[in-house]
Amino acid sequence: MRKLALAAFFLAVALAAPAPGQDLRATVEAWVEANRRPLVEELVEAVSIPSVAADSANIRRKAEFLARALERRGFAAELLETDGNPLVFAERAPEDPVRTLLLYFHYDGQPVDPARWRQEDPFQPLLRDGRLADGANALDFAAARDLPPDHRIYARSVADDTAPILALLGAVEALDAAGVGLSSRIKVVLDGEEEAGSPSLVPAIARYRDRFAADAMLILDGPLHQSGRPTVSFGARGILTLELVVFGPRAPLHSGHYGNWAPNPAVRLAQLIASMKDADGRVTIPGFYDGIEFTAADREALEAVPDDLPAMMRSLGFAAADRVGDSLQEAIQFPSLNVRGLQSAWVGAEARTIVPATATAALDVRLVAETPAETMYARVRDFIASQGWHLVERDPTDAERAEHSRIARLTRSAGTNAFRTPLDHPVAARVVEALGEVWGELPVRKRTSGGTVPISPFVEALGVPALMVPTVNHDNNQHSPNENLRLGHFYDSIVTIAAILTM
Amino acid sequence: MRKLALAAFFLAVALAAPAPGQDLRATVEAWVEANRRPLVEELVEAVSIPSVAADSANIRRKAEFLARALERRGFAAELLETDGNPLVFAERAPEDPVRTLLLYFHYDGQPVDPARWRQEDPFQPLLRDGRLADGANALDFAAARDLPPDHRIYARSVADDTAPILALLGAVEALDAAGVGLSSRIKVVLDGEEEAGSPSLVPAIARYRDRFAADAMLILDGPLHQSGRPTVSFGARGILTLELVVFGPRAPLHSGHYGNWAPNPAVRLAQLIASMKDADGRVTIPGFYDGIEFTAADREALEAVPDDLPAMMRSLGFAAADRVGDSLQEAIQFPSLNVRGLQSAWVGAEARTIVPATATAALDVRLVAETPAETMYARVRDFIASQGWHLVERDPTDAERAEHSRIARLTRSAGTNAFRTPLDHPVAARVVEALGEVWGELPVRKRTSGGTVPISPFVEALGVPALMVPTVNHDNNQHSPNENLRLGHFYDSIVTIAAILTM
Repeated sequence: MRKLALAAFFLAVALAAPAPGQDLRATVEAWVEANRRPLVEELVEAVSIPSVAADSANIRRKAEFLARALERRGFAAELLETDGNPLVFAERAPEDPVRTLLLYFHYDGQPVDPARWRQEDPFQPLLRDGRLADGANALDFAAARDLPPDHRIYARSVADDTAPILALLGAVEALDAAGVGLSSRIKVVLDGEEEAGSPSLVPAIARYRDRFAADAMLILDGPLHQSGRPTVSFGARGILTLELVVFGPRAPLHSGHYGNWAPNPAVRLAQLIASMKDADGRVTIPGFYDGIEFTAADREALEAVPDDLPAMMRSLGFAAADRVGDSLQEAIQFPSLNVRGLQSAWVGAEARTIVPATATAALDVRLVAETPAETMYARVRDFIASQGWHLVERDPTDAERAEHSRIARLTRSAGTNAFRTPLDHPVAARVVEALGEVWGELPVRKRTSGGTVPISPFVEALGVPALMVPTVNHDNNQHSPNENLRLGHFYDSIVTIAAILTM
Repeated sequence: MRKLALAAFFLAVALAAPAPGQDLRATVEAWVEANRRPLVEELVEAVSIPSVAADSANIRRKAEFLARALERRGFAAELLETDGNPLVFAERAPEDPVRTLLLYFHYDGQPVDPARWRQEDPFQPLLRDGRLADGANALDFAAARDLPPDHRIYARSVADDTAPILALLGAVEALDAAGVGLSSRIKVVLDGEEEAGSPSLVPAIARYRDRFAADAMLILDGPLHQSGRPTVSFGARGILTLELVVFGPRAPLHSGHYGNWAPNPAVRLAQLIASMKDADGRVTIPGFYDGIEFTAADREALEAVPDDLPAMMRSLGFAAADRVGDSLQEAIQFPSLNVRGLQSAWVGAEARTIVPATATAALDVRLVAETPAETMYARVRDFIASQGWHLVERDPTDAERAEHSRIARLTRSAGTNAFRTPLDHPVAARVVEALGEVWGELPVRKRTSGGTVPISPFVEALGVPALMVPTVNHDNNQHSPNENLRLGHFYDSIVTIAAILTM
């Protein structure tokens, strides 16, 4: 059904018939064009407040600044106190809302290493006439005559994730100016600890459950697909981290005196890892991919993602990808078993002629909705045991060493589960439609994003369908020095959010 | 023939018939008993001279001290100058020598870390009434009434390798006192750089070739078999070290965004290592063990080595050994492929959720006489190439990354070849017989020692059959803090050397 509707919409676009949403786009774009300076000035003011989660005094200043800004746009706003930084909560509703949407943003930013920034202070925003990597010049913001789309603001937290908050403010103001009403009850929650793992978010549910009640949650965070096209993501993978230590002799042994006789834990670890994956990178642990199926609509969405895989491979420096899926998008619909680190004794100038005592692999298992952390931990553990390994949870005792020829220690993190909202969920489908209508092309639909987001446990605990609607430029240096926002992306995100507010 | 002779000798011992050598033993032991104090005093004086190869002033003092000590025992002694520390060369011959023996020792010792020693100065020898690890007490050497066999001297270089030099001096003096003549022309070379890899030894051949001419070389260095029985080793394994780096993406990638798609070099390295060895630790590279065969006499010698393998495994902390051979002694007759180190990205608290860019294995290939370094390097390299790997000698270029799906860098050391003298070589067999005669039991015969010795290139370059005759206690803390010599082993080594000098 939904697929038919989307196809019909596409047909309309193809025939250049007047499509719904084009009026809205023109209205909002005109308002943005006329209000570039105040929009950017308010953003600059917001990101001038240091926003590292550990800096509780400044982060509270920023929370209060944003609460007041929301109030100025007709929201009822308050700070919800937690054991950590406050959440900003705000609400505004039309008379007869179609639904309730919970919009999530975070107002904290990554920690900074000022020495690695190309400006004096990551919290003194700098305007540049393009991309630093392309040799852009710094401009005097106060004197800048114009703020064209290719200009950028360099500052910590500007793209991740303050700009989307300011874009919401702009969208509401633009709609109010045009006399266009909101269609949904809008609840806003601003997280002040996302870059610290959002430790206060799940506990806040117990205290503020009513505030968070909604038909769907939209997470306004992250960059657009690298094609630059509007993007909606229906979920995110979770993660379970594991450490696997294989034990050899009690202490390192001289490789001359004992090599060929004492068991080598580095070789044994290599053999164990090799037994878990085939030459194409597919996991061979029984059941690892159980339950993963794609509908025709899923396949259509996956195939429509405009990844330029040959260009990506050239850029990333490899000639052939693993074959877990037929494409990157398909691959990340599956759980992964990634060896993120190996260590045994020494290499390079430090190398010594020994049989090492231990060999360690750091693993991460990226989870999908069908493969929760507990299940996957059990599958990995049971597989290792089935290969003849005696598993321990601390160093083996003398008795264990005397009894078992293969001993390994497997330890784990608690894990963060994945979430995924079905492509045909009514709100999800309506967001896709609304973005298609306003932009004249269907957004990139990511059935699951590959990475893991701190919001996942909140989504799981609330039990509300969630979508991610990223808006900023892909090359924003997120989590790195010289984080930046391309102004054109900021202006467009106001249109995107206006479409959601009125859908 | 030789085997029959040994069997006949054994029979003689078994019947308690008066065996040749027992008179010699009684004579030398009586002399040693009467001369314990001057023997140990001279040893203490020798090891009081700091002996680290880099300390050229002191090491020359020690060379001169030892040259004078040899002269006092009737040797013509001289210092042979090299580009490094001098060699001490000395020679003494009977009127009608049966053969010429070149006796090799080294007068330098390992570097010291005084903070880890349980005495003020590793070059101020300390007498203890037993083993430090058993709680032995330090004694006043000057006041010690007796110097019984279980007392020990703690000092750097005392066991490795000064005591054997002093034992030679004692043996000559004891024989002279008893009026027993030497049977062979005895040439002595003392190396002053063994612990630094003996860099001046092979170059010295060009300048002093005549001095080194001999029918056989005996290397008087190292500990007895841990059973404490007299020991002769017919060779030593060589070593080739390799570094294998597997390349993944050009830079580490986010394991969420790219895991399951970007090839993981840690997994690929594990698979490559796993393809080289089977579950029993046997190398599966074609030709790796080619040419290795054992005669019946070889097997007899290997089986006669009194290794207590179950006790060793308990002590070393593993329940099952690799199965390259049926025993430790058999295993070290084969070349080994040892993974001595692994490294890729980070583990433990440093672990990051990435697909690493590279994964490195440090390998050592222990060589035997049948498997020289060049051949083994080619076998490993060709095997890796046959598994579909493109091998480079530096980091891959962009073009190589775009063309080859499996890229690895294999680098190597020059390598040190093994040496091995046949068990039935006349001088080797005579040494075994002579030790059997004087001690009343056949020595432990190690067909090949597992470790690699810096003397190997000298043996190879001279082209002289070489044997190792170790004499010091197995628990001497060689190369570690608190190096020590059990006096009983020192006294016995004088008997052993006397047997060789008169055989």
